[in-house]
Amino acid sequence: MSGAIEKLVEEFTKLPGIGRKTAQRLTYHLLKVPKADALVLSDMVKDLVEKVKSCSVCGNLTEIDPCDICRNEHREKEIICVVEEASDVRAIERTGEYRGLYHVLGGVLSPLDGVGPGDLAIDMLLERVRSGGVREVIVATNPSVEGEATALYLRNALADSGVRVTRIARGLPVGGDIEYADDVTISRAIEGRRELP
Amino acid sequence: MSGAIEKLVEEFTKLPGIGRKTAQRLTYHLLKVPKADALVLSDMVKDLVEKVKSCSVCGNLTEIDPCDICRNEHREKEIICVVEEASDVRAIERTGEYRGLYHVLGGVLSPLDGVGPGDLAIDMLLERVRSGGVREVIVATNPSVEGEATALYLRNALADSGVRVTRIARGLPVGGDIEYADDVTISRAIEGRRELP
Repeated sequence: MSGAIEKLVEEFTKLPGIGRKTAQRLTYHLLKVPKADALVLSDMVKDLVEKVKSCSVCGNLTEIDPCDICRNEHREKEIICVVEEASDVRAIERTGEYRGLYHVLGGVLSPLDGVGPGDLAIDMLLERVRSGGVREVIVATNPSVEGEATALYLRNALADSGVRVTRIARGLPVGGDIEYADDVTISRAIEGRRELP
Repeated sequence: MSGAIEKLVEEFTKLPGIGRKTAQRLTYHLLKVPKADALVLSDMVKDLVEKVKSCSVCGNLTEIDPCDICRNEHREKEIICVVEEASDVRAIERTGEYRGLYHVLGGVLSPLDGVGPGDLAIDMLLERVRSGGVREVIVATNPSVEGEATALYLRNALADSGVRVTRIARGLPVGGDIEYADDVTISRAIEGRRELP
């Protein structure tokens, strides 16, 4: 078979969730569409890695440093929402409900994978809090073992800072089904119950 | 959000089987891997569309015209296996069992989609057969309604040529289960039964 086909199939299989069959389908698809369309994909990938960088303030992905959110005058600068990855910023922004700033850790504490506090943007966060003006830090790491451990670590690290450290609510997802929810989620949902308004 | 991210997500969703969530995951993945790795993907896509073309003899995808198979002295030149797409050539070659040549139609007859005989490489096939030296044409279009219709069309078109026109066997896939096979497949499997050797 053609070397160029084989090489692209190989590259596609390196992407997450793309197996050999899918990689082949994608490759043959690119040979069927107009040449210009395939070249647009090539250029966009190049553009992505050449233009997008991390915001020097919050770690969010951006083309202009600092990022849109950090530069935005209308955001509430006293609240920082701490997330694992830039993709989490995107998910939270999509809701349109949150008006504060962000801080991207770049992962979670995971001693088994050799990820310690020094590997995450924790010092940067402490620095931001220390430089003043912050009232609340919302820890929005994932509700996984590592995410919870990271949340506890941050709570301790920020204990003397005088800022309020909160954690996003864990409970049943909207549209979820108690019958099929796992035990821990149900426990957390009961634990986190609130008065009906 | 960053324009470059948004644009690449958009491009990825144009690929078959890639929804918005997968496109986002792929894009963020490319921002996490070393920049050089992402650029390799970009270059490979460009290489693909710039180097790969159709073989002028059989329509297979190749970087050198005519393709490896058409140029190969050791292939049986009297047998032509007719397939819908170049990806089918790849699948058949993988078995290592077939030693003849190929002919890629570039699709199947599909009046509802406006695909007639003139849109496929049928004239090229008839020309190859007419120019002599061909003993058998194996029609390996998919066992779909359109694939079968195309097979019948080719049989008629080749009726006066004196070559043997055969169709690949339809039946139960190896490892398949009669209980879960559809009715048409079972009918075809019984219809196509053979003496045990």
